Amino acid sequence: MLGRDAYRAWTTITLRWADADRYGHVNNTVYYQWFDDAVNVWLIAAGLLDLRGDGPIGLVVETGCRFAKPIDFPGAVEIGLAVEHAGTSSARYRLGVFLPDESDGVAEGHFVHVYVDRTTRRPQPLSPAWRARLETISLGER
Amino acid sequence: MLGRDAYRAWTTITLRWADADRYGHVNNTVYYQWFDDAVNVWLIAAGLLDLRGDGPIGLVVETGCRFAKPIDFPGAVEIGLAVEHAGTSSARYRLGVFLPDESDGVAEGHFVHVYVDRTTRRPQPLSPAWRARLETISLGER
Amino acid sequence: MLGRDAYRAWTTITLRWADADRYGHVNNTVYYQWFDDAVNVWLIAAGLLDLRGDGPIGLVVETGCRFAKPIDFPGAVEIGLAVEHAGTSSARYRLGVFLPDESDGVAEGHFVHVYVDRTTRRPQPLSPAWRARLETISLGER
Amino acid sequence: MLGRDAYRAWTTITLRWADADRYGHVNNTVYYQWFDDAVNVWLIAAGLLDLRGDGPIGLVVETGCRFAKPIDFPGAVEIGLAVEHAGTSSARYRLGVFLPDESDGVAEGHFVHVYVDRTTRRPQPLSPAWRARLETISLGER
Repeated sequence: MLGRDAYRAWTTITLRWADADRYGHVNNTVYYQWFDDAVNVWLIAAGLLDLRGDGPIGLVVETGCRFAKPIDFPGAVEIGLAVEHAGTSSARYRLGVFLPDESDGVAEGHFVHVYVDRTTRRPQPLSPAWRARLETISLGER
Repeated sequence: MLGRDAYRAWTTITLRWADADRYGHVNNTVYYQWFDDAVNVWLIAAGLLDLRGDGPIGLVVETGCRFAKPIDFPGAVEIGLAVEHAGTSSARYRLGVFLPDESDGVAEGHFVHVYVDRTTRRPQPLSPAWRARLETISLGER
Repeated sequence: MLGRDAYRAWTTITLRWADADRYGHVNNTVYYQWFDDAVNVWLIAAGLLDLRGDGPIGLVVETGCRFAKPIDFPGAVEIGLAVEHAGTSSARYRLGVFLPDESDGVAEGHFVHVYVDRTTRRPQPLSPAWRARLETISLGER
Repeated sequence: MLGRDAYRAWTTITLRWADADRYGHVNNTVYYQWFDDAVNVWLIAAGLLDLRGDGPIGLVVETGCRFAKPIDFPGAVEIGLAVEHAGTSSARYRLGVFLPDESDGVAEGHFVHVYVDRTTRRPQPLSPAWRARLETISLGER
């Protein structure tokens, strides 16, 4: 799994009681909530996504995750984000889940967004400005 | 609704993409997740609940919430907590949901825990130590 | 708690792995998801709510629930629904959670919707047709 | 994506209001809840998993999903399940999400469980009985 150096943007998320399932660790589905959070928080901060505006929105077409080590409430996770690939109207992100003060990640995943017109929901080519902004968080050398 | 002064303990929780429903605001059910978080984070910090130990655990027997104003991802909420009443083996908490830097709450609720033996799940009277600890966060004068 | 006779409309919901928390029973917050389901399924079936149309929508301003008995995945729950009170632009529903083939409920709650214009989000008086439809599921004699 | 013929076991799950996000369709993370449901419902029905017993439990080490078509509340989904591969102490499942009465799936994913001792959480080799049971739902010819 990639180390912290590979990632270019970070989001901290507080764990919730509801995240843990009957086995006493955070359920696998919750990591995907964090991927949604990390990607969208970054898109909003980067000025690319305006939830109340009329620009393009990202629809998720593929995700995946490998889970290396169980974690548990309470506490927080730090989600590292980087762009692996920008396509014509899509972006493939890599995400790493880390506990604060730990260098090894606890999970790693990918997340593919297709950017579509908000109303028609048809794919919309990424503008040069979008593309340039995505490049600022390109995945580090591995 | 009670102001910030009424509360005695605080927890900050980051909002998630998944918290908002189709109407573009945080869904009512999510506030109850935050109540679970605030109560349990405080119980753990107070040394009353040990998730991996064998002391009593709290089971929820009643909750309720009034919603004053919609809120939305991204951002965070601050949850104020206070004890309204400590019974023989139960505690009734009051909770207020606030946006950072706002003095008026966006929602207010209550949450009743019955403390039970972890294995038998039978109610267990609160020890004097528990009771004293709960009193340190008694709801402020109204 | 009210028996099955008090309720006028029913929705069956399948339990999910994610519903159970670390204590091995369905978490209290999940019951509120079912209340959302039962009310909205009924509103849609009654022709009062069209998720993709432009009529009024219901915003939740208050909920509450008492939990009588823990339940667990897998299986299903049956949610009974009845209208306790219809106001100028609001409705207060009573909801009962039952296991299939059991006559005593496992939880009982209330749920208050204010009906608002979808765009302005301002309260909108209930039309006579809405009111008449709500009356068809008035809470039974107690 | 695989058709219905590829799958060997089926679970029907009711959609919830909470499943849809601000874009008015079921959020990507919810499909993973259904994978948890389908796998565990089958394991329990097959007699391999006893939630309250002391046999091995499955921990999720990898999942992934491709999303072909948005779906929305209300309604239900049918989850098709098959075993792609059984390892020494693991199983890789393939899952398809279908709308009732539709032959093409709306999403397809995989889910890898490692079976561990419930207490030590160390991997435990699959018994011949487990292996034989898993083979009864081997993925169909493609």
